[in-house]
Amino acid sequence: MNKENLEKIISGIKPVSQKWIDKAYKRLDSLTKPRRSLGYLEELAAKYVAIREEEKPVIGRKRVFVFVGDHKVVEEGVSAYPAEVTGLMVANFVKGGAAINVLSRRAGAEVEVIDIGVAQDPGEHPGLVRKNVKRGADNIANGPAMTIEEAMQAIEIGLERAAEAVAGGATILITGDMGIGNTTPAAALCAAYLDLPASELVGPGTGLDKEGVARKVKVVERALEINRAACIGPLETLAALGGLEIAGICGLCLGGALRRVAIAVDGFISTAGALAAMRLCPAVKDYMFFAHQSAEPGHRKFFEREGLRPILNLNMRLGEGTGAVIATQIIENALAVYNEMATFEDAGITPGA
Amino acid sequence: MNKENLEKIISGIKPVSQKWIDKAYKRLDSLTKPRRSLGYLEELAAKYVAIREEEKPVIGRKRVFVFVGDHKVVEEGVSAYPAEVTGLMVANFVKGGAAINVLSRRAGAEVEVIDIGVAQDPGEHPGLVRKNVKRGADNIANGPAMTIEEAMQAIEIGLERAAEAVAGGATILITGDMGIGNTTPAAALCAAYLDLPASELVGPGTGLDKEGVARKVKVVERALEINRAACIGPLETLAALGGLEIAGICGLCLGGALRRVAIAVDGFISTAGALAAMRLCPAVKDYMFFAHQSAEPGHRKFFEREGLRPILNLNMRLGEGTGAVIATQIIENALAVYNEMATFEDAGITPGA
Repeated sequence: MNKENLEKIISGIKPVSQKWIDKAYKRLDSLTKPRRSLGYLEELAAKYVAIREEEKPVIGRKRVFVFVGDHKVVEEGVSAYPAEVTGLMVANFVKGGAAINVLSRRAGAEVEVIDIGVAQDPGEHPGLVRKNVKRGADNIANGPAMTIEEAMQAIEIGLERAAEAVAGGATILITGDMGIGNTTPAAALCAAYLDLPASELVGPGTGLDKEGVARKVKVVERALEINRAACIGPLETLAALGGLEIAGICGLCLGGALRRVAIAVDGFISTAGALAAMRLCPAVKDYMFFAHQSAEPGHRKFFEREGLRPILNLNMRLGEGTGAVIATQIIENALAVYNEMATFEDAGITPGA
Repeated sequence: MNKENLEKIISGIKPVSQKWIDKAYKRLDSLTKPRRSLGYLEELAAKYVAIREEEKPVIGRKRVFVFVGDHKVVEEGVSAYPAEVTGLMVANFVKGGAAINVLSRRAGAEVEVIDIGVAQDPGEHPGLVRKNVKRGADNIANGPAMTIEEAMQAIEIGLERAAEAVAGGATILITGDMGIGNTTPAAALCAAYLDLPASELVGPGTGLDKEGVARKVKVVERALEINRAACIGPLETLAALGGLEIAGICGLCLGGALRRVAIAVDGFISTAGALAAMRLCPAVKDYMFFAHQSAEPGHRKFFEREGLRPILNLNMRLGEGTGAVIATQIIENALAVYNEMATFEDAGITPGA
């Protein structure tokens, strides 16, 4: 992929139509409940209807994409876990033992694990998509994480995964991530895109102490400083401060919006990828359901700055897509209500206020 | 039932044991995720384990109890809907067209509809439990809603419904309500139990305008004033200011706790019943999962005063058990994680921080 192809994809993504949102609310207001009494569930249903442009929105297949990548910035002591854990967790994912596997089974979602940037080749596994762009993002405290070409390659993988899933009947794409150290690039990207200081976006990640967090703030500040000249646009910023899995998530978001399917965005890392997609193409937001507010403090800043609200706030900070797969059940509840409830006319009731 | 029997039931309800909570966290901390990274999900799992005292907590059958009752206080103009809607909604419930039916189908929960105080006899319907105590609670603005005997009869019905469900294999009891006008007694009860002024607990209910809310505040103030002498204890307060369906929910909560099953408490009306149960027997709280924060402003006051947190906040204000049945899916997710995730030992990972 080159920049021209990317531009073409971006220009193919259209905002959803207000006409379909109005149409959805008209039906919602005809159902046997006080007007708007299902609150946010009604907003979720209307958004989905407008994305799909369907009178009776079908809940198709759901797929979680766990993009996995390493980060050489862990050399700076920014994570509570050693980098080897990334590879061990890939093995755990393909064996079905991780939280995302359990939650996806409950929700009826498929899990796809993508090696997009793991440091050590995890080898062949059934259910593992091997699309390694490079064996770990470079240390952002010393220079760019990736070249522009590598970032575009990772975006392209996300686009491809979206295309394949939608071709197979998926109507909800669920973002997920795994990568020791990845709250550091996520914080750096959010700082750059939201124009906020590092200290407001850096948090404990998987479990840093106060001293560790202070060190991590300094690392992100150095990353922002050293890469400042490179960050001339959203793509360049993603390449300089991001990671392979974050760029993959960005591509998945673009690919989902291009094909008019819903995207359930997980926590802080997924949000960094989603935010890159939003900066490349603002209309992508119309297709995104922000699943939950992570315990990572930077995530709240994102919601405040962008004027968005999450579906859930369960104080989770695991990633993998765990919050998003739970939120997807809520979206499906909203659609079931939309499709299946009796209308006032059916029930012989004259609507009140 | 007499007061002595009720006392006996109350003294049979024991707090959950800290030993089981500690045991649950020991397992949670051995699972392949950073410590406590599943946030509130872990608290839900630990609470359920302590309720059931099971190493591998089984998710049994789930039943939603929609207690239905009318309120003569609607004469004061406190509802946006006419009282006849209560009966029409009973018909909608038994036909499966209401929001609670749709959401329960999605969650795999059974729905039981109980006429405990409907004004007009809805007649025989498959799936309708006919246990009418009286045809509508009396107008609380003029005197007590019920006699003490009627309140105890309604509590007993709740106890019986819990006993029958648990005997049939239910491990989660989900509270629900329907009754035109029932945010008025719920606000009055919360004002009395939480010792807060009516103005802090009264809200628009199903859709009152500003003027209507102001009128409703005055009605609740009158109800509190006229019944002040009667409110000498939690049971007496429930009888004076409550409603049949609220007393039924109170009984269901007591019955669930007595049999050591989880209780998922729905919105503002259910909370009034749950609060009555908590005032009768503080240990009941250990068995309760507060499902969601209703859009009804008084509900937030309850959480603040009692130092509790809801699972969800979706701005819902429908009742019926709709928020609680959604929250039950989250509790089940938490238990699936607890039962099914691989441990660090399984995955060959040395836990970090």
